[in-house]
Amino acid sequence: MAKNTNIRISLPAVCFVWQIAMIILFGVFIRYDEESDTHWIEHRRKKNISTNLENDFYYRYPSFQDVHVMIFVGFGFLMTFLKRYSFGGVGFNFLIAAFGIQWALLMQGWFHHLDENDWKIKIGVENLINADFCVASCLIAYGACLGKVSPVQLMVLTLFGVTLFAVEEYIILELLHAKDAGGSMVIHTFGAYYGLTISWVLYRPLLSQSRHLQGSVYHSDVFAMIGTLFLWMYWPSFNSAIADHGDGQHRAVINTYLALASSVLTTFAISSISQNNGKLDMVHIQNATLAGGVAMGTASEFMITPYGSLIVGFCSGIVSTFGYLFLTPFMEKTLKIQDSCGIHNLHAMPGVIGGIVGAITAASASRSKLINTFDFKDAVANRTVNIQGGYQAAGLFVAIAFGLVGGALVGGILKLPIWGDPADANCFDDDVYWEVPEDEDENFLSRHQNMNHARGIPDL
Amino acid sequence: MAKNTNIRISLPAVCFVWQIAMIILFGVFIRYDEESDTHWIEHRRKKNISTNLENDFYYRYPSFQDVHVMIFVGFGFLMTFLKRYSFGGVGFNFLIAAFGIQWALLMQGWFHHLDENDWKIKIGVENLINADFCVASCLIAYGACLGKVSPVQLMVLTLFGVTLFAVEEYIILELLHAKDAGGSMVIHTFGAYYGLTISWVLYRPLLSQSRHLQGSVYHSDVFAMIGTLFLWMYWPSFNSAIADHGDGQHRAVINTYLALASSVLTTFAISSISQNNGKLDMVHIQNATLAGGVAMGTASEFMITPYGSLIVGFCSGIVSTFGYLFLTPFMEKTLKIQDSCGIHNLHAMPGVIGGIVGAITAASASRSKLINTFDFKDAVANRTVNIQGGYQAAGLFVAIAFGLVGGALVGGILKLPIWGDPADANCFDDDVYWEVPEDEDENFLSRHQNMNHARGIPDL
Amino acid sequence: MAKNTNIRISLPAVCFVWQIAMIILFGVFIRYDEESDTHWIEHRRKKNISTNLENDFYYRYPSFQDVHVMIFVGFGFLMTFLKRYSFGGVGFNFLIAAFGIQWALLMQGWFHHLDENDWKIKIGVENLINADFCVASCLIAYGACLGKVSPVQLMVLTLFGVTLFAVEEYIILELLHAKDAGGSMVIHTFGAYYGLTISWVLYRPLLSQSRHLQGSVYHSDVFAMIGTLFLWMYWPSFNSAIADHGDGQHRAVINTYLALASSVLTTFAISSISQNNGKLDMVHIQNATLAGGVAMGTASEFMITPYGSLIVGFCSGIVSTFGYLFLTPFMEKTLKIQDSCGIHNLHAMPGVIGGIVGAITAASASRSKLINTFDFKDAVANRTVNIQGGYQAAGLFVAIAFGLVGGALVGGILKLPIWGDPADANCFDDDVYWEVPEDEDENFLSRHQNMNHARGIPDL
Repeated sequence: MAKNTNIRISLPAVCFVWQIAMIILFGVFIRYDEESDTHWIEHRRKKNISTNLENDFYYRYPSFQDVHVMIFVGFGFLMTFLKRYSFGGVGFNFLIAAFGIQWALLMQGWFHHLDENDWKIKIGVENLINADFCVASCLIAYGACLGKVSPVQLMVLTLFGVTLFAVEEYIILELLHAKDAGGSMVIHTFGAYYGLTISWVLYRPLLSQSRHLQGSVYHSDVFAMIGTLFLWMYWPSFNSAIADHGDGQHRAVINTYLALASSVLTTFAISSISQNNGKLDMVHIQNATLAGGVAMGTASEFMITPYGSLIVGFCSGIVSTFGYLFLTPFMEKTLKIQDSCGIHNLHAMPGVIGGIVGAITAASASRSKLINTFDFKDAVANRTVNIQGGYQAAGLFVAIAFGLVGGALVGGILKLPIWGDPADANCFDDDVYWEVPEDEDENFLSRHQNMNHARGIPDL
Repeated sequence: MAKNTNIRISLPAVCFVWQIAMIILFGVFIRYDEESDTHWIEHRRKKNISTNLENDFYYRYPSFQDVHVMIFVGFGFLMTFLKRYSFGGVGFNFLIAAFGIQWALLMQGWFHHLDENDWKIKIGVENLINADFCVASCLIAYGACLGKVSPVQLMVLTLFGVTLFAVEEYIILELLHAKDAGGSMVIHTFGAYYGLTISWVLYRPLLSQSRHLQGSVYHSDVFAMIGTLFLWMYWPSFNSAIADHGDGQHRAVINTYLALASSVLTTFAISSISQNNGKLDMVHIQNATLAGGVAMGTASEFMITPYGSLIVGFCSGIVSTFGYLFLTPFMEKTLKIQDSCGIHNLHAMPGVIGGIVGAITAASASRSKLINTFDFKDAVANRTVNIQGGYQAAGLFVAIAFGLVGGALVGGILKLPIWGDPADANCFDDDVYWEVPEDEDENFLSRHQNMNHARGIPDL
Repeated sequence: MAKNTNIRISLPAVCFVWQIAMIILFGVFIRYDEESDTHWIEHRRKKNISTNLENDFYYRYPSFQDVHVMIFVGFGFLMTFLKRYSFGGVGFNFLIAAFGIQWALLMQGWFHHLDENDWKIKIGVENLINADFCVASCLIAYGACLGKVSPVQLMVLTLFGVTLFAVEEYIILELLHAKDAGGSMVIHTFGAYYGLTISWVLYRPLLSQSRHLQGSVYHSDVFAMIGTLFLWMYWPSFNSAIADHGDGQHRAVINTYLALASSVLTTFAISSISQNNGKLDMVHIQNATLAGGVAMGTASEFMITPYGSLIVGFCSGIVSTFGYLFLTPFMEKTLKIQDSCGIHNLHAMPGVIGGIVGAITAASASRSKLINTFDFKDAVANRTVNIQGGYQAAGLFVAIAFGLVGGALVGGILKLPIWGDPADANCFDDDVYWEVPEDEDENFLSRHQNMNHARGIPDL
């Protein structure tokens, strides 16, 4: 029953080899774009740009930093809720995000930004944002597998996840010409179904053996609130980061702000009504309050109106909390899908809602608004609003399909017995992959025992 | 003695009904303004605006996000210091802020931004900042009641608090034409006296029954420092967020930065001098270090000079720390005001200092500076500096009066025995309103006991 | 053996006297610059500046706030890892940074910004950033002394540290005309050698007496990750905050983002390969992942290319982790340097790498690129790239020399027996300088014992 969880060769090998591959591929393909290159001065002169402020950097950088915080602190701390998997939650999130953003710059570059003259990818701040977005889908997928996989498996999950994302994103945004600035479909729906399918393939029938570690403790729930709040607060930046300059970014912020506020209230309501004495459940508050941000991903730029945003948040908060109450247990028992963080409730369902809302909003817009919002030109210049709505809906199906099929394939790869994943009885335990300091309880028993936590302090 | 703290009907009812009311009122009243609407392009053309950057979004958005962090992480985590009320501190802060910003958009909109042509409120990023500001006053009031009220009471406190705020703000800013960019008077003074009066009305003679929960533990004090630091760091954004474009915002940041730095040193000094062996008290460091930011709220935009800002911070740090040492015990014993977080020391007194500093600075300015800073025109174009100083002082009294009278009225409502508040012996205990995981101590006793924290993991 | 750690006179005295000195010196020397003064309007008119956005505030403010978070939350929480020194880690960091930024505004002002007409220092947002930068060097030095010095000693360390920094920075940037936008040399190399030399002078032969406190506990390691991540995420802002407007800031962000991502992977690799079963060590993850940001400080603005940035991060992550594994124990045992946080690994070595990378990049640049990047004019207008490379290298030596000599002098001062530092057996213990709440273990023993944590709640 005890599995071999030694990753002393595999994890360093993967990190080293893949990082060296990144260096080589970046050497061959990646260059600064004209706004981050020293030629910016000449570029400005040539294009008659009056001020440095017109450099895209100043439009996008504040949003970029907010998104960056969501990726590393938001997702990372949201996954610290387990009583003994906080290191793995925030630490592996850190590792795979740091790898994923590099690979995403390449994959998204090849599909979207390859300069046909010199076959180079020219990067600027918008590419950094897109790389963070791309990685978000893999971090969502990690949520379904939290505590049950090895870091090597997570690196593989990320390698393929980023690859699939880039293809799927290319199909939805470039071929279907659908809009999805905040990624309800492209990021959340895809990422969630990708992770859930992997978790389904990796089903662990005896996971109850580690059930004593599947809960939180008081302070781990407070740590998780750091993640929740940074996600919640910066979500307006997420949904507006790559929206159109000017009113596009402005409107995306307002819509997301409102949807999020609304889903907080319905989450508290459903959480309270579902328990004896109306006691609130931290799991709901940590997660379902964010559903409004997910559901507003596609339509954030659209003229959905402020009250429309409130309605979207209202519904998604309800759906998400009900998911935690009823769907997660059902999925585990009946469908054999073990979803550690409940990503089906936070990302899959609200993501689908977001895709549908986007399709409906596009289909019901006036054509003039649509032209302003969608920059119709060339091949798609003659689309009617209904046709655009149809293409939006088609995008949603592409995202789901990529998640399911990609997850099945990658799940199959991750099932190979070579990745050092833990036994069912050792899941949700940092002790498997981390040097864990003796805990406070044991500390209590042997207070003055030597607790040399290897900060390089030698015995004297 | 055991009170009925069942909120299974009341909390969901309040959340649902009020959220639906918000949707309806937003549907009737709230629209995008011309900078967040798709008509921005035509607006730009008509007004001959050369670049998208002139959209107010790019002036205000970074400050908005900082303020947003202060509201949700700053205030939220500052209130996690109690050993067993961290969930309530950060969680109820989240709930009432999410509701309050919606209600504030409406209330402030009706008073300040109602378009007379179509009776709609047109919102943009500045409205979002103002809504966050408005809610701050209710979160301050929550600080006085922390641990002693039910979430339903907090929702009521917020509903009326936002309402009172909008009226008071209208009187001070529009009728008296006083300046208060960082809200020393409008936000802090009002919010603090509002909360203190409520706490006075709700006086609990037997609160000592829950005294074993009124302290902190080691890690809860560290959590609270997260709140302190995010408030401290982003306060320059708070005081400059709605200041005038250009030098106004720039100067407000410098002044606030300096006042805050100065109050840190005097707080450490007084905290150390007041204890045996000079030991520092976390309560002071967590709170009084912020007094400089509060006290610089009104005058942040003014030409108060850098050393003037240092002096303001110097004094307010001293006053605030002395408040924690002497005034809070006195107020509880003699005045029967139980102030859980010491908001009288952090918000009321520094807020009053801020109002006075603002009045003096205005009265002693040269008239040319005043005109630049205050945009005098129309009815107030002929004000002298002394008259402006007088109006500033009048604003301070309005804020105090609204706090006292409003707090007494709302306190009376909250005293009704229908809100599910805890008994004196059950205050400061998350167990009343939250599903709390078994704690680490009990965990120690029964390490392998099943601790099913309802993350939807069924028994198998 | 028991030392006198009473700081009830010395700490308040230092705080008060120095703060009053700041007020006087600010009164004499510091004024608003033309962008933060009410004369900005006339300045705009005179210089024909078309929009308020051209105020430097809008170029720099978002980066400033990120840097500010790094200084107070980043450095502060990174030092909370010890099981019983979290108050001291985050609290003293707060104190000395708040003092240091004021003193830095004066010192840097006298050297760099003194207006020759009126002998005043005119400050704006760039000065605030530079003050934060300057203080960073002292916070790094604190890392070497964490847990072993009194707050009074830290104030002295900061006073002299800021002074030395301003001189060293003047020599490197103004006299040698070297470039160092992110401060690999000026901030990190200087700060680290300054702190290490102080720690060497203050060597404690019997420090093992407090070894039971030299480790972390589970939750203190999670707190430290808050520091790590905010440093890691905002490092691109750090390295670009005072870079040239336009492409300079843009490129600095890209380079730093990539270097940091790369050092995460090599840190995980080395950490895993060095332990049985490949278990990861939180010490490495918390620190060495940041080495890429340090090492990219000098060259961040340069045309180092994206893959060059990855290589820099790759190497510095490896070097830093090896440092924790081998060099820290060696330095303690053989060189008698006790480095509490391992700043030699995180700041000294990556800082030196950064200086060397800067020299090489400058020396190998094309001359036209150099002119664009370095704004050559006046006396240095004829420098060749090789000569510039030489001056960059000379800057590195100046930084090291200032660190070593300054550290020896200040260490000598701090060795005087008047500062209230703790005995060897009382190091790493918050109980010496803080009112510490009873801890959770004792809480367990006496759950209902009165735990009056002095939040001003009187016994009734």
